[in-house]
Amino acid sequence: MIAILKHGTTPEQMQHLVDWLKHMNLDVHISEGAEVTVLGLIGDTSRVDMELLKSLEMVETVKRVSEPFKQANRKFHPKDTIVEAGGVRIGGGYFAMIAGPCSVESEEQIIEVAQAVKASGANILRGGAFKPRTSPYAFQGMKGEGIKLLLKAKEATGLPIVTEIMNISTLDLFADVDIIQVGARNMQNFDLLKELGKTKKPILLKRGLANTLQELLMSAEYIMSEGNEQIILCERGIRTFETATRNTLDLSAVSVLHNLTHLPVVVDPSHATGKANLVAPMAYAAAACGADAIMVEVHNNPSCALCDGAQSLTPPQFDELSRKVRRIREAIV
Amino acid sequence: MIAILKHGTTPEQMQHLVDWLKHMNLDVHISEGAEVTVLGLIGDTSRVDMELLKSLEMVETVKRVSEPFKQANRKFHPKDTIVEAGGVRIGGGYFAMIAGPCSVESEEQIIEVAQAVKASGANILRGGAFKPRTSPYAFQGMKGEGIKLLLKAKEATGLPIVTEIMNISTLDLFADVDIIQVGARNMQNFDLLKELGKTKKPILLKRGLANTLQELLMSAEYIMSEGNEQIILCERGIRTFETATRNTLDLSAVSVLHNLTHLPVVVDPSHATGKANLVAPMAYAAAACGADAIMVEVHNNPSCALCDGAQSLTPPQFDELSRKVRRIREAIV
Amino acid sequence: MIAILKHGTTPEQMQHLVDWLKHMNLDVHISEGAEVTVLGLIGDTSRVDMELLKSLEMVETVKRVSEPFKQANRKFHPKDTIVEAGGVRIGGGYFAMIAGPCSVESEEQIIEVAQAVKASGANILRGGAFKPRTSPYAFQGMKGEGIKLLLKAKEATGLPIVTEIMNISTLDLFADVDIIQVGARNMQNFDLLKELGKTKKPILLKRGLANTLQELLMSAEYIMSEGNEQIILCERGIRTFETATRNTLDLSAVSVLHNLTHLPVVVDPSHATGKANLVAPMAYAAAACGADAIMVEVHNNPSCALCDGAQSLTPPQFDELSRKVRRIREAIV
Amino acid sequence: MIAILKHGTTPEQMQHLVDWLKHMNLDVHISEGAEVTVLGLIGDTSRVDMELLKSLEMVETVKRVSEPFKQANRKFHPKDTIVEAGGVRIGGGYFAMIAGPCSVESEEQIIEVAQAVKASGANILRGGAFKPRTSPYAFQGMKGEGIKLLLKAKEATGLPIVTEIMNISTLDLFADVDIIQVGARNMQNFDLLKELGKTKKPILLKRGLANTLQELLMSAEYIMSEGNEQIILCERGIRTFETATRNTLDLSAVSVLHNLTHLPVVVDPSHATGKANLVAPMAYAAAACGADAIMVEVHNNPSCALCDGAQSLTPPQFDELSRKVRRIREAIV
Repeated sequence: MIAILKHGTTPEQMQHLVDWLKHMNLDVHISEGAEVTVLGLIGDTSRVDMELLKSLEMVETVKRVSEPFKQANRKFHPKDTIVEAGGVRIGGGYFAMIAGPCSVESEEQIIEVAQAVKASGANILRGGAFKPRTSPYAFQGMKGEGIKLLLKAKEATGLPIVTEIMNISTLDLFADVDIIQVGARNMQNFDLLKELGKTKKPILLKRGLANTLQELLMSAEYIMSEGNEQIILCERGIRTFETATRNTLDLSAVSVLHNLTHLPVVVDPSHATGKANLVAPMAYAAAACGADAIMVEVHNNPSCALCDGAQSLTPPQFDELSRKVRRIREAIV
Repeated sequence: MIAILKHGTTPEQMQHLVDWLKHMNLDVHISEGAEVTVLGLIGDTSRVDMELLKSLEMVETVKRVSEPFKQANRKFHPKDTIVEAGGVRIGGGYFAMIAGPCSVESEEQIIEVAQAVKASGANILRGGAFKPRTSPYAFQGMKGEGIKLLLKAKEATGLPIVTEIMNISTLDLFADVDIIQVGARNMQNFDLLKELGKTKKPILLKRGLANTLQELLMSAEYIMSEGNEQIILCERGIRTFETATRNTLDLSAVSVLHNLTHLPVVVDPSHATGKANLVAPMAYAAAACGADAIMVEVHNNPSCALCDGAQSLTPPQFDELSRKVRRIREAIV
Repeated sequence: MIAILKHGTTPEQMQHLVDWLKHMNLDVHISEGAEVTVLGLIGDTSRVDMELLKSLEMVETVKRVSEPFKQANRKFHPKDTIVEAGGVRIGGGYFAMIAGPCSVESEEQIIEVAQAVKASGANILRGGAFKPRTSPYAFQGMKGEGIKLLLKAKEATGLPIVTEIMNISTLDLFADVDIIQVGARNMQNFDLLKELGKTKKPILLKRGLANTLQELLMSAEYIMSEGNEQIILCERGIRTFETATRNTLDLSAVSVLHNLTHLPVVVDPSHATGKANLVAPMAYAAAACGADAIMVEVHNNPSCALCDGAQSLTPPQFDELSRKVRRIREAIV
Repeated sequence: MIAILKHGTTPEQMQHLVDWLKHMNLDVHISEGAEVTVLGLIGDTSRVDMELLKSLEMVETVKRVSEPFKQANRKFHPKDTIVEAGGVRIGGGYFAMIAGPCSVESEEQIIEVAQAVKASGANILRGGAFKPRTSPYAFQGMKGEGIKLLLKAKEATGLPIVTEIMNISTLDLFADVDIIQVGARNMQNFDLLKELGKTKKPILLKRGLANTLQELLMSAEYIMSEGNEQIILCERGIRTFETATRNTLDLSAVSVLHNLTHLPVVVDPSHATGKANLVAPMAYAAAACGADAIMVEVHNNPSCALCDGAQSLTPPQFDELSRKVRRIREAIV
């Protein structure tokens, strides 16, 4: 970590700062230049409160040289992590197609969708049982019952399942779930992350709507610091001023994360865009820029003409998407 | 709720939609114009999934006419809510000055700061015991021990206390806390909100870094829907592209919230700006535009020359701030 | 256009509004519902000041049903516009690869790069002559001299050229330029747009860093309203809170624009990301989601080891990019 | 300027970089630490392309120590600049109240408004003659005719006037205008800024919707570098995800700018919020945090009941605003 002190800092002020840093078991290397003084902090700087340091009057700027995340850091673990869930591998060249309905609604529904997406090449089934909703009056999911239905669909098709947890007190219900999802709104629910770090379950960790990629990696680090290294990072759109799409899908995140970390990266174009007609093009783009997995919503409700055109794809639309994604993956080898 | 259908929607498509809406116990009033067809949905639309409706191919746009929050809504409760905590009132003309250190560090520290800020006019003491930190390796607060020290400071000074909860499993530790704070990162931790709604404690609910004011009100609604109406909303800066300040303090939020809701609004300039020299001007601005309370960080560490200039004010700086805030409040009457 | 009036609007207030709207030659269709009154405005609403209407106390919300852009609107011109520039076609299935250096530096440089990118499949040459720079002290480009060198490179290779205009007073210098670029900072320099609308030159119009897609189309409309329909829209990243990339490339823009307009869309991954190692993945993503052209920076400076790794690609890197882009385009047919 | 090189940079790579920097007439001070190598660049670094430097593979980060703006920099000009326009002073303790209609519409209108706002304490008259409009079909202002009417109002009341320029070719029309305004969309129209730098007129420079404060200062530097130091900076809201207000007024900008520069700062709450009922509270907040001037829209149209509630205040509303602003200014002394 480098701290640059302002012109005009007195020797006493600097000594105070250096003493304080040494008190935190850091070595301090001082380089006084014509314009500024540069302090090089050597040792375990992950415990240094960068915001506090920055806020000091005498400090011009602070810059981490070593990233604050360690276990998630590619520098220390150059090889890609391959996450294994129910026999399916993700990362390190293994690609996963995750598909399923937004919410689990009935046994018939979830089994039909599972069979359809499997036939089109999906190898993991998604489905919401606990649904985080902005309004307390909206449908909050089938909860434990929904997980049971997902497990029936898993039994019927052999597809491993991924579903979201909202509260650590429900963890027991996830005993047979293959991948536990942490939603965007809980990305910095640090107590939840720590508890999930104590399980051995693969975790699908979604980026918060206003979180930087470094913050996403710090949240992964929370899970890893408790012993669980089976993490899949998920880009699902960030909040910007543009209103044409629900969120702005930040596809640069795929390559940026691949440079910074060894963890696999999945892209969710359904939630990012909020419109069915944008899901396929964004899935193609995600495949082209090297995503390790794509997660899309698929519904199967022939009696509900309403649902066409919503955020979820029909099985035939998913079939075409899946086929083209495979062709794009061949094109970029 | 109004749904505007696209030109070219067939009668069959429209009938499907109308049937589906009636199935949700809504009356539908249809107005066919030259260019578009407008559906007026009458009844309890708070359960309608607006995002789903918007995502339908045939729908041009959807607009709520009645806001989705009810109990927090000024339309239905025109009178200001006055929150009472440990003998102090906030809202409806009652103004609170909340001050104290970022983190509780020792008995001596918290009592000294409490006495100092009380002498300068603060009527509520703040202090962090559970600290949400981006890094798992950073200091996470004194936790339960910190709450005990806050209670000692309360005993010594008579000031009611406010401190942050991160996890509902620690609720018992907050039995004697006067106001429970929900941090920005937990604003949409819906399960936590629901549990806090079952208590009778005043809740200080901070706006998330990327959350709209309507979302803030929906989170308040989660608490209120469980029976707890003692809520103070907190503006503490949002995330934007500007890097000169840690966050961008959105002071328009004060008036916008006062128009939409009867709940009191507190402004936290310390976390929003991250720089001591911006705290006072932003506190003055908050007082001038009608905030019901101001919450600022004050430290008391004469041996630590370091801390001057950081985000926290010294007691003399707070004294001046407090004095000018009172004068500004008189000026705007 | 639909205006929804608030509950409680008096008949007199409504009559004032209706009279005012009729005064603007609009027909007003009134539909009074239980909760709200909906006004349908029929006629040429492109002249109605939507912001003013929205700001009226009695108005709950205003929604355009017909988009405010007409000539750029796909509804009225369903067929893709094909822009022709120096024998090259863009749009309607015709794909362009635009490449060249950030700035024109010398005759040798621009001709060498032009020959290299042509050999790798580029069919249009880019190069900056007038350079918009944040600082008045930074290099502002070779200006008119730079355009002369671009024309020499065009002569040497047969590639049509695209370069940026900053000021209408320099228009004469662009007489032999094939495509005139309007930079992101000038996207709402309306007087410049109008003047360019009077030329017959193809215009490459870059999206501003904080501009919505609708605003981009309104700026295209400025050019088209003066008679010039040869416009290529350019997505080049928007400004968000994320700092890992210079800007956030909004690839959903490609499909959103294709739905709204008949004009072709080019993607510029070099300026959006600011890092060479992100240019290729984002170019692949752009090709996969249907961009009509890709514009990348390529330098050719074997003596300058410095330049490797900067935002510009080397010719061999561009060669690989160009090859994979072609393969991806085949994969999505 | 400080450049931090990545661990693993070879001596050859470093030498290339150092040679290149020396070629730009900079002295380079090298400090090799355990973890990183820090280069201190000494000399005129305002010409160094920081983006290029950052984009080099070997460079970890680049940090300016001396700001890139010089003439606008408070470090080199500690004393507040006082702008004088038509006998009115702004900055250095002199406060200006700028008021007037959004657009000049008629002689009667502009003179009536001018008289009304003068009576309430305004000392500068604003009014739009050239109106930048998103749509080419919207009313573009009375142009030169509007300026003539402003001059009549100036004659009638003695108030100096401020109005916006969009195109340097119209400069002659501004000969008797006291302050020339550069709108938010033209903040980085560098050619316009340079031309205005050659005049001796005070310039009111509005911050762009997505521009940082440093970029605003660099645009002021463009004007100053041509010899014109009479600049007033204007905060008028930035673009964020929040939709409750038209823009998000960034009031921290006032103090941040006062720290960085000696130029006066005006706040425009009318354009920032877009709602009349937010204008007064935001004007009070601006006064409380130390703005040197406030600029608000006032209309005077008793026959148009419509206009009440829009973004513009009525004269009685402005009178109250003006009175409270004075009281707040006394409270913060």
